[in-house]
Amino acid sequence: MSEFKIPFGGRAHNYTEEEIESVVSVMRTGGTLTQGAHRVEFEERLKSYSGAANAFVVNSATSALELAATLCQLDSRAEIVIPGHTFTSSAYPFAKHGVKIVWADIDSNTHVVSLAQIEKLVSDQTRAILVPHLYGYGCDMNPIREFAAQKNLILIEDAAQAFGVEVDNQKVGTFGDFGIFSFHSHKNITTLGEGGAVLVKDDALADLVPMLRHNGHCSFSEPRDDYWIPAMGNLDIPQKDEKLLWPGNYCLGEAECALGTRLLKRADKINSEKRKRAIQFIDELAEFNELRFVRENTRRHNYHLLAAEVIGIDRDAFIRRMAGHHRIQCVVQYYPLYRYPFYKKIGLGDANCPLTDRYFDRMVSFPFSHLLDEAELDQILEATKESVRHLRS
Amino acid sequence: MSEFKIPFGGRAHNYTEEEIESVVSVMRTGGTLTQGAHRVEFEERLKSYSGAANAFVVNSATSALELAATLCQLDSRAEIVIPGHTFTSSAYPFAKHGVKIVWADIDSNTHVVSLAQIEKLVSDQTRAILVPHLYGYGCDMNPIREFAAQKNLILIEDAAQAFGVEVDNQKVGTFGDFGIFSFHSHKNITTLGEGGAVLVKDDALADLVPMLRHNGHCSFSEPRDDYWIPAMGNLDIPQKDEKLLWPGNYCLGEAECALGTRLLKRADKINSEKRKRAIQFIDELAEFNELRFVRENTRRHNYHLLAAEVIGIDRDAFIRRMAGHHRIQCVVQYYPLYRYPFYKKIGLGDANCPLTDRYFDRMVSFPFSHLLDEAELDQILEATKESVRHLRS
Repeated sequence: MSEFKIPFGGRAHNYTEEEIESVVSVMRTGGTLTQGAHRVEFEERLKSYSGAANAFVVNSATSALELAATLCQLDSRAEIVIPGHTFTSSAYPFAKHGVKIVWADIDSNTHVVSLAQIEKLVSDQTRAILVPHLYGYGCDMNPIREFAAQKNLILIEDAAQAFGVEVDNQKVGTFGDFGIFSFHSHKNITTLGEGGAVLVKDDALADLVPMLRHNGHCSFSEPRDDYWIPAMGNLDIPQKDEKLLWPGNYCLGEAECALGTRLLKRADKINSEKRKRAIQFIDELAEFNELRFVRENTRRHNYHLLAAEVIGIDRDAFIRRMAGHHRIQCVVQYYPLYRYPFYKKIGLGDANCPLTDRYFDRMVSFPFSHLLDEAELDQILEATKESVRHLRS
Repeated sequence: MSEFKIPFGGRAHNYTEEEIESVVSVMRTGGTLTQGAHRVEFEERLKSYSGAANAFVVNSATSALELAATLCQLDSRAEIVIPGHTFTSSAYPFAKHGVKIVWADIDSNTHVVSLAQIEKLVSDQTRAILVPHLYGYGCDMNPIREFAAQKNLILIEDAAQAFGVEVDNQKVGTFGDFGIFSFHSHKNITTLGEGGAVLVKDDALADLVPMLRHNGHCSFSEPRDDYWIPAMGNLDIPQKDEKLLWPGNYCLGEAECALGTRLLKRADKINSEKRKRAIQFIDELAEFNELRFVRENTRRHNYHLLAAEVIGIDRDAFIRRMAGHHRIQCVVQYYPLYRYPFYKKIGLGDANCPLTDRYFDRMVSFPFSHLLDEAELDQILEATKESVRHLRS
């Protein structure tokens, strides 16, 4: 019931008959619907796809970040550097632990963070760096990784929007100590709307994930003669120094896992199709200097989102023209986190991020779901041209 | 690849073609896969089914309990009374907030908690009571509700196992300030393996649930001329006195919600079929005084689980006979929470619950999924008879 002919959209892609069948098949079997063989298979496939040593699927990328924040074991004297230009789940799980977030600015060309913005914020109290590959564009990870190693900082990659993206021929998510994926409804592949994964580099920390994901459930350490003595299963809570690592229930169901395994076969195809369409779109607008895109015709960008910086014309007037005249819903992303009441209330309302502020005030994000057909993309393109021309005059 | 002919089982019921179609239909539409119209419909149906003023669906009963624990706004001087005989998610979300759990014992006949066990544990520091309707048997809620009202205590009903159960012609979950449902793989109805709901009595607290469920997302309070100014949406964090109410991502996907709505049509039928089979099973064993069941041929029991107390023969020898000779997997539930390393490590290893200890050491829980057919139930019955007779001699 949208007022828009082309809304921004809440859905990333359609499902093939095979993908639908993977869900139906789990529904028809009599097996468990959670914590079963499909989860194991999805995790194995994620490891081979990404090259990660350890991969764990969970019910959202937020849950993956909650797990990473718990495993970082940071106390309230610690600082973490996070760009203000990201989705809130990149940040608030760390704030829950009392860690002080220091807001990093972004690069003016790529609109993601690079080492230049990070290194000047590192203090004696800094313990970690979080790098979001926002829009699906892979940050320049090798310099950041080297810096983190040299300074002994934990490195977390939020690749929620960048599944399948490669930087220097390596999948994002595998550079850091932790890598986060999202399979949310908006993402390039989605496990029925909610879902995520966390990659964990350290084997000892990886060993803790199954119990932290599932209420503290674990095995008994001593061998047992009878499966029910002293109980069916054990419950424990990892402890480091005085700090307790609290679990949650972050389990992803079997149908979602079977679907995820199936979607991995199509992930690269969806990414390259989106990239091809994005490059066409950008190149069609080459003469329109008012719109400045990040053009990256390699695996470094999956074009989860298609965004532009608006220069020389009024950005808000452009969105108004697109919405009112063409009934096409463009949006703006991402409100700098430090501007929200949420972060102000928790004492994180201060930042010195002029490029973040400027980009937010200038940017526009176009509808760009994989569901859009060629005719719809053409409509967006023509409407964009018309709107820019209209505002030029 | 079970070693058992009849394993205890991880799956509660099959799906009808209509239920499968409800999921397929969501997969085929181009709409959002989370936080959409199916969630709204599932919540509306849950309200009319249960008679609750406010119902919110989430990705697990654990998440529902995390939300309830957050909304209780208890500080670390507070105490909550919880039976030691329950699943861990009834308890640990409260412990996360630093609340001291005081372990209640259970009634020796019903094996659930009643006012008699609760009232003697209430101190000046007690702020809340949590009542699990374990096994699917409805606790005697009216005396507990009156007591809680008189003492000004928050009342939480963990009805994870008791969906559709009635006490004094009222659905469990609606007596308390908060009511919890589970739609996990094991439960009488399951939304693809994971899922749950929280009922919230107070309208002001209910208003907070959508933002707490979804990363703190909320609307702007001031009217807006443009949908993207100052941003697409707002983020806030509720605050009471000094205490912050942290959000999470507890969203349940649209396919699960569509399936849940469809399953509500069948919930009463599944419950009554399970009850009918349970009563038959119990009555067939009427001559076997060694097995003492809770026999409740009314809507007060949905027989999510079928459990018995073993008297006069060796419980462990009985389970061994069932497993080894008949290849039928019985289990024991619920290891008293205070015995786990988890609760010992967080200072909750002490309890005075002799009936909980005695029941745990004597109880047996039979495979009792709705998937089992008559022939399998007969096998369990005959094996039970043989095993008791064998151990008598």
